[in-house]
Amino acid sequence: MQNRQIVLKSRPVGIPQPEHFELKVSEAPALKDGEFLVENHYLSVDPAQRGYVNDENNYAPPVPIGAVMRAMAVGKVVASKCADVRQGEFLYGWFGWQDYCAATPAGILRRVDPAQAPLSTGAGLLGINGLTAYLALHDIGKPKPGETVLVTAAAGAVGSIVGQLAKLAGARAVAVVGSDDKGRQCCEEYGYAAFINYRKPLEGALRETCPKGVDVFFDNTGGEIADTVIRQMALFGRAIQCGTMSIASWVPNPVGPRNDREILTRRLRIEGFVIFDHLKRYDETAAKLAAMARDGLLRYAEDIGTQIADAPQALVDVYSGRNKGKKLIKLR
Amino acid sequence: MQNRQIVLKSRPVGIPQPEHFELKVSEAPALKDGEFLVENHYLSVDPAQRGYVNDENNYAPPVPIGAVMRAMAVGKVVASKCADVRQGEFLYGWFGWQDYCAATPAGILRRVDPAQAPLSTGAGLLGINGLTAYLALHDIGKPKPGETVLVTAAAGAVGSIVGQLAKLAGARAVAVVGSDDKGRQCCEEYGYAAFINYRKPLEGALRETCPKGVDVFFDNTGGEIADTVIRQMALFGRAIQCGTMSIASWVPNPVGPRNDREILTRRLRIEGFVIFDHLKRYDETAAKLAAMARDGLLRYAEDIGTQIADAPQALVDVYSGRNKGKKLIKLR
Repeated sequence: MQNRQIVLKSRPVGIPQPEHFELKVSEAPALKDGEFLVENHYLSVDPAQRGYVNDENNYAPPVPIGAVMRAMAVGKVVASKCADVRQGEFLYGWFGWQDYCAATPAGILRRVDPAQAPLSTGAGLLGINGLTAYLALHDIGKPKPGETVLVTAAAGAVGSIVGQLAKLAGARAVAVVGSDDKGRQCCEEYGYAAFINYRKPLEGALRETCPKGVDVFFDNTGGEIADTVIRQMALFGRAIQCGTMSIASWVPNPVGPRNDREILTRRLRIEGFVIFDHLKRYDETAAKLAAMARDGLLRYAEDIGTQIADAPQALVDVYSGRNKGKKLIKLR
Repeated sequence: MQNRQIVLKSRPVGIPQPEHFELKVSEAPALKDGEFLVENHYLSVDPAQRGYVNDENNYAPPVPIGAVMRAMAVGKVVASKCADVRQGEFLYGWFGWQDYCAATPAGILRRVDPAQAPLSTGAGLLGINGLTAYLALHDIGKPKPGETVLVTAAAGAVGSIVGQLAKLAGARAVAVVGSDDKGRQCCEEYGYAAFINYRKPLEGALRETCPKGVDVFFDNTGGEIADTVIRQMALFGRAIQCGTMSIASWVPNPVGPRNDREILTRRLRIEGFVIFDHLKRYDETAAKLAAMARDGLLRYAEDIGTQIADAPQALVDVYSGRNKGKKLIKLR
């Protein structure tokens, strides 16, 4: 069986570009004892992948040059030499940007039940994006009815879920987006009460849109947008640092206004959230999200490509906000 | 009765200097209904007072020009037209840098029992300093046995208590101080296992002294020291933003390295702490601290002046680290 793979060709600084990758074709791997073979159906494209390939401070060592790109995917087990994994099962895990992956149970993030929801959701709404939205919002943000929840990258795979969950919690969700089109989509489809286009002057728009300040700041971008928002947070506000998409490179460490005084005088809490710390809660949380989707309480958008060769460009697109909803590559 | 008062003469930018104040002498105020007259015994000198006089972002409006300097003090009620307050009581509250204050119950922080501990402790160990140390360390820091607790301004009124409380919690306390003398004092008297002199290269010293990283960062200074510490925090570390003494001025907002990536990848929690949010817990917490002091589990140092005219210089001294322990002015 032929195995197409996107491998890392050179080490990028900042956001990886298509020239840092190449497409290689080889034979699907032979299985060793304890392994199983996953045939990928949906490859996931995630902002966090940038951190997998560069040498910047991150939560996992970088992908070696020449290795297949680290990525999550939803796939089907087509062969198994592993007692815990059956042929025919669908899994979500670290299966890489490739057709076939010889995996071990350590690479499984969640077992996917195709009867629970469409298979694609396994990598989005029921994958790290929906799980992040749910757990970070409720664990750290703890929105109360009537509070204001401001979300950056609000039309993205995580933000589009956060708006709806915040609304379901009785809070008022405000979207920060890069275009009026996306803002309208946020209000019409993702539960947001209002939107702010960050390409226009932000401070005044924030003051107008969030007159009582921001109680929960779900931040996927960091940088100058966050600088402005932090200064308009309400007393005892909670900021979730969930991603730093707006920062082109962390080498050298960019500077910005110090926030110590804001944190102190407004008694803010700023906390980092990484979904991989919460593996044990995936099934339970995915079941809740799937039920909400089935009940019509939760919409999700997917932006699905079909060419494995387009995966690197898709990552660039996610960083520039050109995707509409969760970006996936459907292989079969 | 003659009432000496330190009044604000002009609005400082940054740390207030003696020339921003003047000593005025007038008659002690006459009481209105509902008021009581406090004869101050100990005036408190606190870094937070800087924030009371300048126009920087703070948690209370600034002291008006010509008004008595906002300050905490421990005093005795010498007359009362207030049903809730008896003549002869000792109180800790917002009584200002002056001999006599016509106060209302809103100005009381805590009723002081002179039998519980020496009167001076009412403004230090059992005042906002000890209360801050205890509540911020336990509420936000939550040190576990074996963890490393790093404290800036470690020899100060708050830091000297934090070291001992961290040690009592089974953690390893590390002091950051401005001189080797203070560092030795921290280790000999305040429960610290090691010290770092921040006037020497900090990064290497931190790496050596905290080889497993910093789990709890009790930060009284902010600024460049904090920049370096944040980068050496352990996964899931907790940083308590309790003061920004190292920042000379917040106008314009100083810049520093962005911490978003550190917060995200290390899953840090950074939280601001202001003791005045916790008024209801003062008595219970002060009782615990007093008992620890009586049992010989907790030492406290006081640096006591006797001239009211020296109060403004004492504030400068606190900012430059020249005090040894809690700075007080004893009036009688």
